[in-house]
Amino acid sequence: MRTSIATVCLSGTLTQKMEACAAAGFDGIEVFEPDLVTAPQSPEEIRALADRLGITLDLFQPFRDAEGVDPATFAGNVRRAEAKFRLMRRLGMDTMLVCSNVGTASVDDDHVSAAQLRELGDLAAGYGVRLAFEALAWGRYVDDYRRAWRVVELADHPAVGVCLDSFHILSRGHDPKAIEQIPGDKVFFLQLADAPTLSMDVLSWSRHHRLFPGEGSFALAEFLAHVLRTGYDGPLSLEVFNDTFRQTDPDRTARQALRSLRWLEDQAARQLGGEAGPDLVRLPDVDEPAGLDFVEVKAEDAGEVEVLLRQLGFTFRGRHRSKPVRLWTQGSARVVCNEQQARDMPPTLSAIGYEVSSTAVSADRAARLLAPQVHRRTYAGEQELAAFAAPDGTEIFLGEVPEGPDATWTVEFEQGASPDPDPLVTHVDHVNLVQPWQHYDEAVLFYSSVLGLEAQAALEVAGPVGLVTSQVMRSRDGRIRLALNLLPAGIEGGLPQHIAFACRDVVTLAREARARGLRTLAVPDNYYEDLDARFDLAPDLLATLRELDLLYDRDGDAEFLHFYTATAGGVFLEVVERRGGYDGYGAANAPVRLAAQLSR
Amino acid sequence: MRTSIATVCLSGTLTQKMEACAAAGFDGIEVFEPDLVTAPQSPEEIRALADRLGITLDLFQPFRDAEGVDPATFAGNVRRAEAKFRLMRRLGMDTMLVCSNVGTASVDDDHVSAAQLRELGDLAAGYGVRLAFEALAWGRYVDDYRRAWRVVELADHPAVGVCLDSFHILSRGHDPKAIEQIPGDKVFFLQLADAPTLSMDVLSWSRHHRLFPGEGSFALAEFLAHVLRTGYDGPLSLEVFNDTFRQTDPDRTARQALRSLRWLEDQAARQLGGEAGPDLVRLPDVDEPAGLDFVEVKAEDAGEVEVLLRQLGFTFRGRHRSKPVRLWTQGSARVVCNEQQARDMPPTLSAIGYEVSSTAVSADRAARLLAPQVHRRTYAGEQELAAFAAPDGTEIFLGEVPEGPDATWTVEFEQGASPDPDPLVTHVDHVNLVQPWQHYDEAVLFYSSVLGLEAQAALEVAGPVGLVTSQVMRSRDGRIRLALNLLPAGIEGGLPQHIAFACRDVVTLAREARARGLRTLAVPDNYYEDLDARFDLAPDLLATLRELDLLYDRDGDAEFLHFYTATAGGVFLEVVERRGGYDGYGAANAPVRLAAQLSR
Repeated sequence: MRTSIATVCLSGTLTQKMEACAAAGFDGIEVFEPDLVTAPQSPEEIRALADRLGITLDLFQPFRDAEGVDPATFAGNVRRAEAKFRLMRRLGMDTMLVCSNVGTASVDDDHVSAAQLRELGDLAAGYGVRLAFEALAWGRYVDDYRRAWRVVELADHPAVGVCLDSFHILSRGHDPKAIEQIPGDKVFFLQLADAPTLSMDVLSWSRHHRLFPGEGSFALAEFLAHVLRTGYDGPLSLEVFNDTFRQTDPDRTARQALRSLRWLEDQAARQLGGEAGPDLVRLPDVDEPAGLDFVEVKAEDAGEVEVLLRQLGFTFRGRHRSKPVRLWTQGSARVVCNEQQARDMPPTLSAIGYEVSSTAVSADRAARLLAPQVHRRTYAGEQELAAFAAPDGTEIFLGEVPEGPDATWTVEFEQGASPDPDPLVTHVDHVNLVQPWQHYDEAVLFYSSVLGLEAQAALEVAGPVGLVTSQVMRSRDGRIRLALNLLPAGIEGGLPQHIAFACRDVVTLAREARARGLRTLAVPDNYYEDLDARFDLAPDLLATLRELDLLYDRDGDAEFLHFYTATAGGVFLEVVERRGGYDGYGAANAPVRLAAQLSR
Repeated sequence: MRTSIATVCLSGTLTQKMEACAAAGFDGIEVFEPDLVTAPQSPEEIRALADRLGITLDLFQPFRDAEGVDPATFAGNVRRAEAKFRLMRRLGMDTMLVCSNVGTASVDDDHVSAAQLRELGDLAAGYGVRLAFEALAWGRYVDDYRRAWRVVELADHPAVGVCLDSFHILSRGHDPKAIEQIPGDKVFFLQLADAPTLSMDVLSWSRHHRLFPGEGSFALAEFLAHVLRTGYDGPLSLEVFNDTFRQTDPDRTARQALRSLRWLEDQAARQLGGEAGPDLVRLPDVDEPAGLDFVEVKAEDAGEVEVLLRQLGFTFRGRHRSKPVRLWTQGSARVVCNEQQARDMPPTLSAIGYEVSSTAVSADRAARLLAPQVHRRTYAGEQELAAFAAPDGTEIFLGEVPEGPDATWTVEFEQGASPDPDPLVTHVDHVNLVQPWQHYDEAVLFYSSVLGLEAQAALEVAGPVGLVTSQVMRSRDGRIRLALNLLPAGIEGGLPQHIAFACRDVVTLAREARARGLRTLAVPDNYYEDLDARFDLAPDLLATLRELDLLYDRDGDAEFLHFYTATAGGVFLEVVERRGGYDGYGAANAPVRLAAQLSR
């Protein structure tokens, strides 16, 4: 279907916004009136620019406080509307959004609203304009799409229809099912927005915290399916008021926006099944990763991280035959240390490889979801990997699930030792990635739409430099776990990222690692006293935890023991042992780690 | 009275927080338990550090989910509590905050809660500990201070009293008057927090958006007066959970916090009148500025600003006799261009002088409110000005109201022209200062407490780089108007600041300025079309506005006409004409300006 986006979603001037929408691949835009009023270009220039960019001007918005008013006020509104119809003619536009009255409504009577819309519709028709009437969630009288439709039915004018906006309907908890009773040709426009579950006044929620589809918690695929069942064939348009998008790179936001629509179209097509029209984007099924292929640390000198890996019992598997890259493994945990094109770079978590059943299918899905491709040089005889950049810049490599215990590409590494046949570390438990505040919502949709990871409930962790929001994204079987940590705007520096290795016996591993010289992150004695007060631990266990700087959590009978290494550049390592099906991450211990890292 | 602050108000490690509190001048702190748990120092070290810093450890907090539980759960709570009592003995602490149960409460019976608190009180007394029971606003059963007091009355134990927290009481809209019925010796602790009016769930409001007293909208002076009428003589303690304070300089936050308490004590003393005890801080009456003495622009080369001033009809009044400083005036608007110690500095709005009736009184009040002093060199025979730094770094100078039309210090400027006897610009209408996001709340309290300016309702203005919040602070008679613009975190660069001059006839002035070569900020034609649609302007007026790049607003019959100059470095100038008592700032026009400035 045709895609569109309101200019209010993006930062910049009107022309910058138009260029960003066109570059991302949108078919059209909604012209948010204040963007036009503040633009130095004439309406004719804007129209010509849209032509050159190949985008249509789909909706002029908003026209406020039109109906439900006394006759004198209405006369003023007619004059005001006609000025805008003239402007729309110069812009070559044919649809105007008319919001239900918030400010000046004084007549709570659908017949009056309908008669006034009919009169405006007559006038509009003379300018080739249609009016799409929308119930704002905070409209004075008309605050429900069912009532807006009733007014439109009463207006009974070919130039008067409804605009449906998912935010105004779903934020109020209104059942979207009745949308199907509206004839498709009376749905003049469709605006889509998602939003997180927040309990705040709906106006603030709407004006500051909307998100693109898939980034919030609204059931938008179901919503869209209801709309499509009416026969609506106009654009799918995004109207997302969001403080962050208003201040960050519009090109990037536009790409993120279009990704969300493609994802939503595919989701709606799946909802509709055989009913779905041919116009909906369909994506290949998500090829859920079966495991982590590797994690890459990039650095001018990765030596500090390699010392930690050796102390944790990793085996050096050799150097890559053509690149300054080394491989360390233990169990199925593979860490690639890459010193290529890494001048002046401290150790940084730079890439993650995922094992999928078909790289071709996964790469196709990622490309159709506008994941930016990444190129890496390969040489004859080396495995070519499909690669994309995640929103935070981490590179994502797709490789096929190996037949044997080792990834096929490990043969490219030479002069190393053989893998340990009985390792304590079995695999990568999770990877913790710090997300810049601008890209956090995008990251959640990226990982869910491209890799099929599911967002868990987010947590807030208090650290000495601020509150960090932690959002785990995981595959359904739990084999892939990414902890996305949101660093608030305004914090200077940053936080280190880490790789957590799953281990069969963390106590033995911690002892052996110490014997090899590892210095674990020191845990305060106060922590153990509090732990004992909270959990009434067996004295032996408490003594072992204390001795080895192990952290502990319990959930019912399930237990979690873990420790951290010191930080090397921007990276540190963790070893975790999950006992009895523990499924969390020791969130209560995160402040201890954050404080200890700051004290270093 | 004694002052205290919870460590959770500040960023950093526990020892950094303690040092910040001591440096600001607090008498004591509340130890927020997670800060202790994550600290590497032993309880004995913390106690010794507090001794060395001269601060007391006033409250150990929080102990959660203590009462209203089944006997098995309570047995666990007793064990957990005793571990904390032992810890408090090591810390030398005697008061613990016990919050009403949120998580585990299963018995909705005040007698059960009271019996369990009594048992805990018996145990606590053995360790020299008192329990201050607090109703959380979201407590499962006990969510009202009146009910917490009933439970404490029923517990009837010398070691069991209440803790009163202004947030938990005022956020729920509970009438604080009944506080006076609690005997003062049963009020074991008092926590103070302000908050903005927000309609969101009370838990999120409490955890993220509390403010220091005077920065929000709670009636805290009245609240404190109720508490003091009980005879309470413990510390006035701040407990403010705020995302910004958690991530910004703790020394600065602590000073801001103590300022808020001094302001609040004085306000409460005024409430109490003759009833007030001798311990309350009292400040001199605010000496409300009668006018703006001068505005200073600092730059390595202020020439670009001086050209603008000349074009606007300002008179060059001469050079300062001892410093590289020049003066321009028109009416009572005085602009000082200062090139002293300004290497590499683009034109910047650096200082504002205020006319007060007594500099000594105003300076005393500012100093007692911890306004940081600023030093400027003066020479024999020159007027010495009291000076302070506002939170955004702008310097504030206090001078006495002149007898004649000119400020007395203008005699220090030599070789200039005589003032224009019939100027179009009469005075400085307002000054617009950009506030870094970290210091916005502090700035509001600073200007209200130090200079007696009143905060007007804040507005949000959409600009091409993000939403800007605009908060006007004004004196009661409107002679001083500062528009504080909050730039959101994460926006790179910044926004320019400006001085707006009031003018008798902006049309004539704009024409004359153009004749002198002024290029006004260009206003898009789209703006005038929209203006006409909105206001149905007389064609002559519209043509004049268009010709001169004038912006327009109307409020009833009152009108506002204004224009902007181009930006020089970080400063631009505005000229405004208020007709018929217009009292706003043309907020609807701000997006036009922001977009036009970006297009330059």
